[in-house]
Amino acid sequence: MELLEKNVLAFCDTDFEDLEMWYPVLRLREAGATVTIAGPEAGKVYKGKYGVPLESDISYADVNSSRFDGLYVPGGWAPDKMRRDADVLKLTREFHEASKPIGQICHAGWVLASAKIVKGYTMTSTPGIKDDLENAGAIWVDEEVVVDRNLVSGRRPPDLPAFMRELINLLKS
Amino acid sequence: MELLEKNVLAFCDTDFEDLEMWYPVLRLREAGATVTIAGPEAGKVYKGKYGVPLESDISYADVNSSRFDGLYVPGGWAPDKMRRDADVLKLTREFHEASKPIGQICHAGWVLASAKIVKGYTMTSTPGIKDDLENAGAIWVDEEVVVDRNLVSGRRPPDLPAFMRELINLLKS
Repeated sequence: MELLEKNVLAFCDTDFEDLEMWYPVLRLREAGATVTIAGPEAGKVYKGKYGVPLESDISYADVNSSRFDGLYVPGGWAPDKMRRDADVLKLTREFHEASKPIGQICHAGWVLASAKIVKGYTMTSTPGIKDDLENAGAIWVDEEVVVDRNLVSGRRPPDLPAFMRELINLLKS
Repeated sequence: MELLEKNVLAFCDTDFEDLEMWYPVLRLREAGATVTIAGPEAGKVYKGKYGVPLESDISYADVNSSRFDGLYVPGGWAPDKMRRDADVLKLTREFHEASKPIGQICHAGWVLASAKIVKGYTMTSTPGIKDDLENAGAIWVDEEVVVDRNLVSGRRPPDLPAFMRELINLLKS
């Protein structure tokens, strides 16, 4: 229970990658953290690419980032939606400016690129958005997990074990 | 990496519950264990109830249980298929007779009931198979996780965090 009393916010929207959404949520809860799911609306069930459901606890607009110790952004197609939401971008910047851990995997880097926080950071992602991250100023590497200051990134579902080891380490410290 | 050098076998067949299959597999890998996926055939992709895929490494028939430190049986509809397979039942009995940890969740109790290993054990499961487990001689309780000697049981996907805490503890000892 190494994350007892830690509060983590996770973004959620339709067509998240099912394992990339759920593995970190369950894993953080296993470590004792309280995970709050934020979506476009509160109390709504969003489905992943395969159809695994997840209900949101709160709307993006109602989140007070100061209540949280870290942020998780899942992959899939959901980040294509999330990056268009002004509250998502504002929250992402708030976590970053407070140097709080932000975990993100696969296509989630789009959200960080649109929040304009990746310049000068070494990151990984699905190879599909390598160009977008580099054009946003990131240094892109092809590794299962990359930690640069407060940003933890991974490429795809098989990276989740290594990715969560590092995200938990960072949230603990 | 508390399970480094541990080898865990996981049964897999069509219509597993997606999170109940994948969360423990990824979680055990995160802890450093080597997880081998056994199915009716080797090298075949099986899909969960929602469609999340998982490829088997080995066929049930080719597994040598003495190579493994523990067994995991997922829920969903897959256990309805698994319990009809003589190799599944033989393997389950071998792990049990060797007092090796067996983790099982939701409908997976059917496999243990057909392997005739639950008599006198306190267990939980989805309420749907409570009667089947009691008729097989188990003492059924409604708790998120139950450990009785080498058997660890859980009810459903939201129990996965508590369930994996206990399964990892048992595999470690």
